[in-house]
Amino acid sequence: MTLLLSNEDVHALLPMPECLAALEHAYRELAAGRGVNRRRSDTFTTTTRGDALYALKSMDGIAPSLGVGAVRINSDIVTWPERAGNARREKVPAAPGGRWVGLVLLFSSETGEPLAIFPDGYLQRLRVGATNGLGAKYLAREDARTVGLLGSGWQASGQLMAIVAVRRIEKVRCYSTSAENREAFAAKMTRELGVEIEPVASADEAVRGADVVLCATNSIEHVLFARQIEPGMHLSSIKRPEIEAAAVRAADRVVIHTHEEKPMHFLASGVQVPEAGEGKGWSLGADLDFRSLPELKDLVSGSVPGRRTAADVTCFLNNIGMGFQFAAAGAAVYRKAKEQGAGRELPTEWFTEDVHP
Amino acid sequence: MTLLLSNEDVHALLPMPECLAALEHAYRELAAGRGVNRRRSDTFTTTTRGDALYALKSMDGIAPSLGVGAVRINSDIVTWPERAGNARREKVPAAPGGRWVGLVLLFSSETGEPLAIFPDGYLQRLRVGATNGLGAKYLAREDARTVGLLGSGWQASGQLMAIVAVRRIEKVRCYSTSAENREAFAAKMTRELGVEIEPVASADEAVRGADVVLCATNSIEHVLFARQIEPGMHLSSIKRPEIEAAAVRAADRVVIHTHEEKPMHFLASGVQVPEAGEGKGWSLGADLDFRSLPELKDLVSGSVPGRRTAADVTCFLNNIGMGFQFAAAGAAVYRKAKEQGAGRELPTEWFTEDVHP
Repeated sequence: MTLLLSNEDVHALLPMPECLAALEHAYRELAAGRGVNRRRSDTFTTTTRGDALYALKSMDGIAPSLGVGAVRINSDIVTWPERAGNARREKVPAAPGGRWVGLVLLFSSETGEPLAIFPDGYLQRLRVGATNGLGAKYLAREDARTVGLLGSGWQASGQLMAIVAVRRIEKVRCYSTSAENREAFAAKMTRELGVEIEPVASADEAVRGADVVLCATNSIEHVLFARQIEPGMHLSSIKRPEIEAAAVRAADRVVIHTHEEKPMHFLASGVQVPEAGEGKGWSLGADLDFRSLPELKDLVSGSVPGRRTAADVTCFLNNIGMGFQFAAAGAAVYRKAKEQGAGRELPTEWFTEDVHP
Repeated sequence: MTLLLSNEDVHALLPMPECLAALEHAYRELAAGRGVNRRRSDTFTTTTRGDALYALKSMDGIAPSLGVGAVRINSDIVTWPERAGNARREKVPAAPGGRWVGLVLLFSSETGEPLAIFPDGYLQRLRVGATNGLGAKYLAREDARTVGLLGSGWQASGQLMAIVAVRRIEKVRCYSTSAENREAFAAKMTRELGVEIEPVASADEAVRGADVVLCATNSIEHVLFARQIEPGMHLSSIKRPEIEAAAVRAADRVVIHTHEEKPMHFLASGVQVPEAGEGKGWSLGADLDFRSLPELKDLVSGSVPGRRTAADVTCFLNNIGMGFQFAAAGAAVYRKAKEQGAGRELPTEWFTEDVHP
């Protein structure tokens, strides 16, 4: 049978510490050449909805030691509104019921069969959180206690879940452009994590004196600048443009998620993607030599060292995601779902065939 | 609701002439820049099954005028056995029940929602058949009556379905390496198409005197050679290596499916893919300048002419498939399924989510 899981199933099955452990193992496999990733592609056309574009995004990966391959698909109506002077990428929930569309399909790398299908939202948050959490585990000061958080959305919650799993965090200061959002976020996450989260009125206030600065925004422009950096800080970003290149260069140790620099873009004619334009998104930091930076797999497997001194500034750039992460974390979700009898069983025959395609 | 269709549904819903019409329209859209394709990727790891590799293959495309984006996924256990001296690519039906795994997911490019999910086998045959059928429609002699067919598998049947839809074919001679297979194939397809199909004992016998030569094999080596070409022939191939480069060069008019030369390969370390090796598969014909050849979209949209004289040798190379074809043909399948109430309705909520991923 092929398992259909819900976001709630994924949430219940894979606590953040287990996702961190699954990815830590998987990055060692990747470092040993036993995993493989197919770089993300973003394919765009216009829509009849004004400036909104249709984006069909996909990424694949295989973790053979876990017996799993994964395809992650997003089918998005995308807009780029400006919020408080910053351009952001926002997906319109245009599917029936005001919903978004992201899917993970897991396959057996031993038989080819479809093992599970589930929405990507919770696993997406978990794997991004765990990725930056691993960066912090190996780079942040052992005695880090305070976090400055930029952003108050879905990814911001995942970043906090991960940092409290790898460090004994006592205080978080959170800034985001909407006062209402950051206040609601702080109240909710204080309850969920049992850590005091204070909403603050500026990015500077959030960052000043923090041991760890977590950028977790939808911005396609810089949100963290060199002038804000203090000795001993660990800087963390979930999107290429968030941290100004000068700030990255000012760090003593910089680790990047992967050398895959940017998604492959495939555009219908006449389509212009703001995040691919000059001075925005993927073009930011183009003067940094990403390929000279160690990757997360090198850090996790021990082939490059982490932080050296308490005063070092460290920086982890989660520049782009990998389908491989969905294979690795998805394998853990699947294993636990089978153990616990979770999910809805669909006939595997629905998704297989008796002709050689 | 999201439609779950079976291969049998697809077969009943989309007769070959309708698939030809759908793709003919779609190639004009593509020529006008209104469609877009994400190039196929093949991602490989080893398996515990001896020499077999696991291949996770995907391709995406969007046909915005039809309101559809498609992702096509194959999750294959692949082997490369030698049959009658020729290396072939064969997929092992290792999924439960001895089945293969290929899926098409259709999405709305206006709302992002998942419209339909179905196995890829029948649509795969239809779209490959229709693609070469369009090549023949614009390139083969109007009075073509005889076909030489190399191959007797799944794709060979699709090639015949398409050629009889675009030309008044009276006789087919079919050669494949297994006498048993070609005899069974000839009997079955004669019944299905109402055209006389004669199994023959050599490729030369199939090709000699044919107006149209259809290569439809799993070979990763040449099967059609320059010495076999006669004036007025139309040559057609579904795989890059089938026709020897000298034969391609000898043709007066050559049209290629697409300038996307080969799939992107992503390999775990130590993986060797036979079809990517020297003198096999994707390396064959590397001395042809594919990018100088017109594409099918140019032929169908009229920006390049077809055949000029009855004595011209013409050649259509279906060098690689496109996710865009699944969007175009899939849109036709979906429209007809909705009209006829075909398929099984699954809750769209299963495949959408209430969090911004």
